[in-house]
Amino acid sequence: MKRTLGTCYYPEHWPRAIWEEDAARMAALGLTWVRIGEFAWSRIEPASGDFRWEWLDEAIEVLGAAGLKVVLGTPTATPPRWVCDKHPDMFAVDVQGHPRGFGSRRHYCFSHEGYLDECRRIVTEVAKRYGKNPHVAAWQTDNEYGCHDTIISYSTAARQAFRGWLRTRYPGQGNDGDIDALNAAWGNVFWSMEYDDFDQIDLPNLTVTEPNPAHVQAFRRFSSDQVVRFNRAQVDTIRRYSDAPISHNYMGRITDFDHFAVGDDLEIATWDSYPLGFLEDRVGATAEEQRHYARQGDPDFQAFHHDLYRAVGKGRWWVMEQQPGPVNWAPYNPAPLPGMVRLWTWEAFAHGAEAVCYFRWRQAPFAQEQLHAGLLRPDSVIAPGYVEAEQVAQELADAPDVAITQAPVALIFDYDAAWAWEVQPQGQGMDYFGLVFDLYRAFRRVGVTVDILPPTQRDFGGYRVVAAPGMMTMPDDLKTALAQSGADVLIGPRSAARDGDFTIPVPLPPAWPGLDVTVSRLETLRPDMPIPISGGGHVKNWFELLEGEAESLFLTEAGMPVAMRSGSIIYCGGWGDDAFFDRLVKDVCDRARVDTTVMPMGVRLRDTGAERFWFNHNPHDVEIEGEILGPAGVIRQVKS
Amino acid sequence: MKRTLGTCYYPEHWPRAIWEEDAARMAALGLTWVRIGEFAWSRIEPASGDFRWEWLDEAIEVLGAAGLKVVLGTPTATPPRWVCDKHPDMFAVDVQGHPRGFGSRRHYCFSHEGYLDECRRIVTEVAKRYGKNPHVAAWQTDNEYGCHDTIISYSTAARQAFRGWLRTRYPGQGNDGDIDALNAAWGNVFWSMEYDDFDQIDLPNLTVTEPNPAHVQAFRRFSSDQVVRFNRAQVDTIRRYSDAPISHNYMGRITDFDHFAVGDDLEIATWDSYPLGFLEDRVGATAEEQRHYARQGDPDFQAFHHDLYRAVGKGRWWVMEQQPGPVNWAPYNPAPLPGMVRLWTWEAFAHGAEAVCYFRWRQAPFAQEQLHAGLLRPDSVIAPGYVEAEQVAQELADAPDVAITQAPVALIFDYDAAWAWEVQPQGQGMDYFGLVFDLYRAFRRVGVTVDILPPTQRDFGGYRVVAAPGMMTMPDDLKTALAQSGADVLIGPRSAARDGDFTIPVPLPPAWPGLDVTVSRLETLRPDMPIPISGGGHVKNWFELLEGEAESLFLTEAGMPVAMRSGSIIYCGGWGDDAFFDRLVKDVCDRARVDTTVMPMGVRLRDTGAERFWFNHNPHDVEIEGEILGPAGVIRQVKS
Amino acid sequence: MKRTLGTCYYPEHWPRAIWEEDAARMAALGLTWVRIGEFAWSRIEPASGDFRWEWLDEAIEVLGAAGLKVVLGTPTATPPRWVCDKHPDMFAVDVQGHPRGFGSRRHYCFSHEGYLDECRRIVTEVAKRYGKNPHVAAWQTDNEYGCHDTIISYSTAARQAFRGWLRTRYPGQGNDGDIDALNAAWGNVFWSMEYDDFDQIDLPNLTVTEPNPAHVQAFRRFSSDQVVRFNRAQVDTIRRYSDAPISHNYMGRITDFDHFAVGDDLEIATWDSYPLGFLEDRVGATAEEQRHYARQGDPDFQAFHHDLYRAVGKGRWWVMEQQPGPVNWAPYNPAPLPGMVRLWTWEAFAHGAEAVCYFRWRQAPFAQEQLHAGLLRPDSVIAPGYVEAEQVAQELADAPDVAITQAPVALIFDYDAAWAWEVQPQGQGMDYFGLVFDLYRAFRRVGVTVDILPPTQRDFGGYRVVAAPGMMTMPDDLKTALAQSGADVLIGPRSAARDGDFTIPVPLPPAWPGLDVTVSRLETLRPDMPIPISGGGHVKNWFELLEGEAESLFLTEAGMPVAMRSGSIIYCGGWGDDAFFDRLVKDVCDRARVDTTVMPMGVRLRDTGAERFWFNHNPHDVEIEGEILGPAGVIRQVKS
Ligand SMILES: [Zn+2]
Ligand SMILES: [Zn+2]
Ligand SMILES: [Zn+2]
Repeated sequence: MKRTLGTCYYPEHWPRAIWEEDAARMAALGLTWVRIGEFAWSRIEPASGDFRWEWLDEAIEVLGAAGLKVVLGTPTATPPRWVCDKHPDMFAVDVQGHPRGFGSRRHYCFSHEGYLDECRRIVTEVAKRYGKNPHVAAWQTDNEYGCHDTIISYSTAARQAFRGWLRTRYPGQGNDGDIDALNAAWGNVFWSMEYDDFDQIDLPNLTVTEPNPAHVQAFRRFSSDQVVRFNRAQVDTIRRYSDAPISHNYMGRITDFDHFAVGDDLEIATWDSYPLGFLEDRVGATAEEQRHYARQGDPDFQAFHHDLYRAVGKGRWWVMEQQPGPVNWAPYNPAPLPGMVRLWTWEAFAHGAEAVCYFRWRQAPFAQEQLHAGLLRPDSVIAPGYVEAEQVAQELADAPDVAITQAPVALIFDYDAAWAWEVQPQGQGMDYFGLVFDLYRAFRRVGVTVDILPPTQRDFGGYRVVAAPGMMTMPDDLKTALAQSGADVLIGPRSAARDGDFTIPVPLPPAWPGLDVTVSRLETLRPDMPIPISGGGHVKNWFELLEGEAESLFLTEAGMPVAMRSGSIIYCGGWGDDAFFDRLVKDVCDRARVDTTVMPMGVRLRDTGAERFWFNHNPHDVEIEGEILGPAGVIRQVKS
Repeated sequence: MKRTLGTCYYPEHWPRAIWEEDAARMAALGLTWVRIGEFAWSRIEPASGDFRWEWLDEAIEVLGAAGLKVVLGTPTATPPRWVCDKHPDMFAVDVQGHPRGFGSRRHYCFSHEGYLDECRRIVTEVAKRYGKNPHVAAWQTDNEYGCHDTIISYSTAARQAFRGWLRTRYPGQGNDGDIDALNAAWGNVFWSMEYDDFDQIDLPNLTVTEPNPAHVQAFRRFSSDQVVRFNRAQVDTIRRYSDAPISHNYMGRITDFDHFAVGDDLEIATWDSYPLGFLEDRVGATAEEQRHYARQGDPDFQAFHHDLYRAVGKGRWWVMEQQPGPVNWAPYNPAPLPGMVRLWTWEAFAHGAEAVCYFRWRQAPFAQEQLHAGLLRPDSVIAPGYVEAEQVAQELADAPDVAITQAPVALIFDYDAAWAWEVQPQGQGMDYFGLVFDLYRAFRRVGVTVDILPPTQRDFGGYRVVAAPGMMTMPDDLKTALAQSGADVLIGPRSAARDGDFTIPVPLPPAWPGLDVTVSRLETLRPDMPIPISGGGHVKNWFELLEGEAESLFLTEAGMPVAMRSGSIIYCGGWGDDAFFDRLVKDVCDRARVDTTVMPMGVRLRDTGAERFWFNHNPHDVEIEGEILGPAGVIRQVKS
Repeated sequence: MKRTLGTCYYPEHWPRAIWEEDAARMAALGLTWVRIGEFAWSRIEPASGDFRWEWLDEAIEVLGAAGLKVVLGTPTATPPRWVCDKHPDMFAVDVQGHPRGFGSRRHYCFSHEGYLDECRRIVTEVAKRYGKNPHVAAWQTDNEYGCHDTIISYSTAARQAFRGWLRTRYPGQGNDGDIDALNAAWGNVFWSMEYDDFDQIDLPNLTVTEPNPAHVQAFRRFSSDQVVRFNRAQVDTIRRYSDAPISHNYMGRITDFDHFAVGDDLEIATWDSYPLGFLEDRVGATAEEQRHYARQGDPDFQAFHHDLYRAVGKGRWWVMEQQPGPVNWAPYNPAPLPGMVRLWTWEAFAHGAEAVCYFRWRQAPFAQEQLHAGLLRPDSVIAPGYVEAEQVAQELADAPDVAITQAPVALIFDYDAAWAWEVQPQGQGMDYFGLVFDLYRAFRRVGVTVDILPPTQRDFGGYRVVAAPGMMTMPDDLKTALAQSGADVLIGPRSAARDGDFTIPVPLPPAWPGLDVTVSRLETLRPDMPIPISGGGHVKNWFELLEGEAESLFLTEAGMPVAMRSGSIIYCGGWGDDAFFDRLVKDVCDRARVDTTVMPMGVRLRDTGAERFWFNHNPHDVEIEGEILGPAGVIRQVKS
């Protein structure tokens, strides 16, 4: 499949008179895709049942006539005022119990049945009308599930739904659940928290001290399932009227719902990539890194998500929104270093993207995102991002097609584990994403191409190394599949530390067949008390006391084992700093005969089936294989 | 007019038996003014309609008999419990939706009609009784509008009033507004935020992500207008019964309402000057500055407000409350360096104050401000501030009268711009007051006397330089007036960046007649990434990419223009650090032939018509024109 | 009395089949005590009136048969769901007005009459059944009053009760209070805050700015009295059925209620000692100290509480919960240095503890505290704490009995003063506990053994020094008792600064008979502006300007007196840093002929009647009297 470019466009924001010119300019720039419609409910249906299709018919036709393909969004992320007036209790409720109001976007609770019915209705109407439109080449459901902290709702609707969900999870006689089973599974005897009936179970907010982690983890799983249900309702509706592929645009570092589970219902996963905004507000880089990469973005954060969404999309994935200049929503919003828009685009292609779409075509002079750059300025003059997009469009002409190959190393990412770490962090700054990402970075620092896998994966054929750090609940069949995979398996810390009801299993974790390692005790560490490893590096944050007869691979300076191995299974009982994770990853790769190449700071490489890419994320020159690569430089080496 | 001193007194706090002695001591100290009454509602009217005038009659008579002039405050900042019981929904509501309760002060919502009626009623009674009293020489409305974050209220009353206000602002047929006009002006199409009716518009709190900036800015303007309306109701009432001038005591760095608009209804502007408290809680100085000036206060903050309130009072202004010792409300409350109470007093006179009143006469042993120093201790022994006030009183004997002259440099301060920056900061720490104050400081560092002007000013005759940084909305007639003023005009960053509905204008800003500069892009910067200017200094916080053919005055080290000029108009596209603003101000002043004198750190000068003052804000000696000036030293040079 | 050990056990958490083995292992370890039952309400009474005694009968019998003595807890800290359903308004309400919900523990408001009745009922039933049980050797009421910020409640029940409490405190005709007396006492005239009726008085939350400190202090006293009332209801009930001593387990650094007042109704005070958790979350140590003592805990914090609870228990006190390994609730949760569990145990005995019980017997694999270490791991294997407990058990065999002797120095600790400092801190970081603890540390740094005394103490016979820093309200009879005690008395800063209604007395504080010192003014200081003392050390945080003819003991470098003395009374007008408090304490001890010995960092000593103990809180060796004491080392010198 050809690598393609696109943009996000809002015909309803602009005078009808300029649509043709916009479309012509898009085509001239070399774009293939235009996403439209995802915030346009108030224009499609300004009052209940009063549909206005003309403008949208026309917009699609104008774009299509210019040779562009339309990705049509369902408008459910922005219910109009009249929908909210009809369902005054449809708002999500925050942890303090305050309903969140109208006036921005994503102002709905996933558990509200009335709103879900409205969504089924509007999606039906849109899908009916455009399901067979030749220019509508793909769909997008809603927009950025989970953005603005919108998964978790403490509404009455959520409470009711949660009780029903629990009845199903702890099934009893007839339609009712088995409350004794729940009490036992959660250990509710602990503080006399036992329930007589599911209708006594509240959502876990506003408690005096922390609620039962089993209670919270159940609520997190329920909340994720509600998103899957909501998305599936839209997918099922669209499918009845259209054969075009269906996508959703995920965001960066949103772990509040299971992206894989939503992705199972989609043909294509897309995500919205804002490297500079993310560096400022969510990467978690050090102050020095933030300073160094302020205009380039983190060198691994986008790559991680590219690899993640390739897995979520079962191979098919896009960047649906690519930052083309300064954004408006981060704590600080600098402009990208010249060349970075091009680099980010090529980086996505290097990780297997089918398409990269820039958000947005033209900077809006009004409303919330006035200071979010577009390819065009508000006065329709081209902005710097346009020029870089144009360069990529030209470079794509003679570039190979999308060619995904299996990586030598796989990394399992498990949303359930992310919730579990949040529910029971045992210390400040302990978070699952951070741990996994730190290990991912270490593989990248030695030039290793990585695949990310869902926790449901059981076939590991072809991988030399499979890493599953911090995955707190690991089913027996996963343990077995990994043990029999032929790959070297790297687990810990916290792997297999809880059963499915958030209880510590006995025998104690990891209780891994063939691995004589027991986590006897664990501790969390302040940033000022890392534990030095003999030979270099430290354990930070999290440290487990390991017992057993397995071979010790690394020891603390005080002689305590940090990583132990039996056969192909390695258990690492600590969260390493960069120096230690570098040593660990090198050791693992060497044993597994995975080639490694130490990268200069800020340089990363990636292999596709047909090419090897080098990216210079630094604001200065670097030397790569004897060649000087400038700031924001990209090398694309076609494999012979 | 003679410069005078005064104090704030609460006869209702003290035994009747000591009033005469207090009055006699005030007179002996050389005080002219006594402000009373502003918190005494519960003693004037302990129950609805039950008025107790005797004590107040007597207090005024005792003070008057001692030769003191009374400033009588309306008691509306502290409605008694019975008023609140009568109007249980009169409390302001915080951003989370919680009503703020009784038990301190300022517990009313400006939009509550019932409370406004109570205010009209009590002010009528007070004005009737004392409007012609020979000892009542001035009035004060309420007390410190905006203190304790009391302008913005998310109450039902405010919501109703806001809808009415919007109907007027976007007028339609008959009494209704034009909701389509509002939707278009705000760009509500953006996220399907369009309304069918004004009654659907809520206040902009508790939204999921940020609300439409046009919505918020409208709410901010409305909230300010409600203060003007509230104050005007009192002024109109008092005027019916009294010819004495009416004042209000503003606070420091309160930008939540338009002080000029309130001031338009007053004869005199006053403000409450707490240099040490302000340094701790609102100046925004660096840690080093806070340490250096801990016992002296910021060297520019009071001066700025003196100049501001001179403009708000159209020339007539006082310090109504002058800190006389440690206060009780800042994060830390140190004692002033000996001499500073005198310095602060003289500084106010140097900026044109008619009167300086110390708050308060005697430290109260009870209630909220027990640890707020007075001129007397709770045991009536004189406190250190008393001695310094006495010295000023003696020095005033042969000092010239108040003599205001026009400064060579003017600085426009626009409350609407302050709200606009808050509504859309585009980055942490971006605030309008900070920008304007930084530029003001730079003028002061080179000894330039500055006038502050309201945004409605159109006559700039006599000024050599007019600066209007960060004024986001600039009407065309202001642009014209400035262009034709004959003064050099310094604008930017962000000047003229939005139209009256918070939309980016096209052509892009600043779109200034005769100035070929376009802000092509802008970015905000973390504190660790200032942009170096060629020749010295940096741009921090805010940087704009300037295009156009105007002359570049300053360039970044990378060669991008930072300030550009065509004729008398200079556009500066960045927020300078001290070093750059020093260079910019020097450049502007030199071209405009405004004399500059580099001040030693912590030293400031100011010219009146008759005098030149030097103030040493340092805790150590400095040399001024060959003379040694001690800590807290003041030089007053009478012009020959 | 023999020093004994124990543990906390939850038979309801474990299979019936292992109870005997658990009991046998406890006995074999050398434990005497087992606390049970305090969270078991849902198992004792799973539905209203449906009592299930069998399991508890059996558990007590199994433990007793193994030779263990049971401490039986009343289960009122964890009301079951059905109790809450019966009393839906029984939850405490937070400062924002949100009711706190079910799902953890301590979810009740102390003022709720319905819940208090439920408590009387369940305690009656439990006491009836086990009051004469031979194995029930002691009682515990509830669990950790005040933990999780549960003393202060802004509920309707609390508001009603507060009004009644105020009527009693300001009594009037018949059953009503005298509202004029309250208004006068609080100075409500200040901001027209006067009330017409007690029913107008709200709780002091959600006010616009700070409420009247007299109002808040009254609410704090009321809130404490509600705890006393609640506890007394249980004690009175138990006493009707049992002669066994009654205890309550207090927590560390909880100052929200008067522990002495609760203790007056108990035979034994116990507390829950978590040295590592406390160091992380409440000691307030510097970053360097936190790093140094991360695995040992603060060297003075436990000692302070040992001394405090010895006073609360009128000599009889225990550690009811001793940290045996990492806990789960602090910001970070490291493991103790080997030897510290033993050190902590011996330290408690050195301060006069009768018993030390480890929390908990076995780590729970489920619910909130899964990562809280026990003596056993979840798999019943012994954990490191077990081994150290075993060593202590063996060492106790030939150790002397509990032997408390009077210390040479006494320190008064006054909860009312703690509230007063919170109500009116006058600066960030000013808190009473911190001040008292800093002085306590200074005595410890010179090896002085200290007794803590309640504010009601009037007999100071036998003490050479009595210190009462920061005690804001000091009744005349306390002043007299101290003046006549024969001891040197160290007071200030802020001593006797307010009368009983939170008003500054005139003559000004301290107004101490025979001491010619007046606090003329006071100031609070940022951490970066300590005031240097001539000869070494600084005043930090709080500084008072002292006037009078008393002898100056210490002067600032600028010559202002910091501490003054007349005869046996010393007034210190500042909060000293370590260097100054070392000098002050040395001076005081030398004059009073109290022996001092400068301790190496991290080393502390304590004398009992029979022994002298040395404790090395460092992770490295120290030399003590020529002997090397290892990390976590303990020396016990039996007095000859
Ligand atoms: Zn077509
Ligand atoms: Zn008169
Ligand atoms: Zn709330």
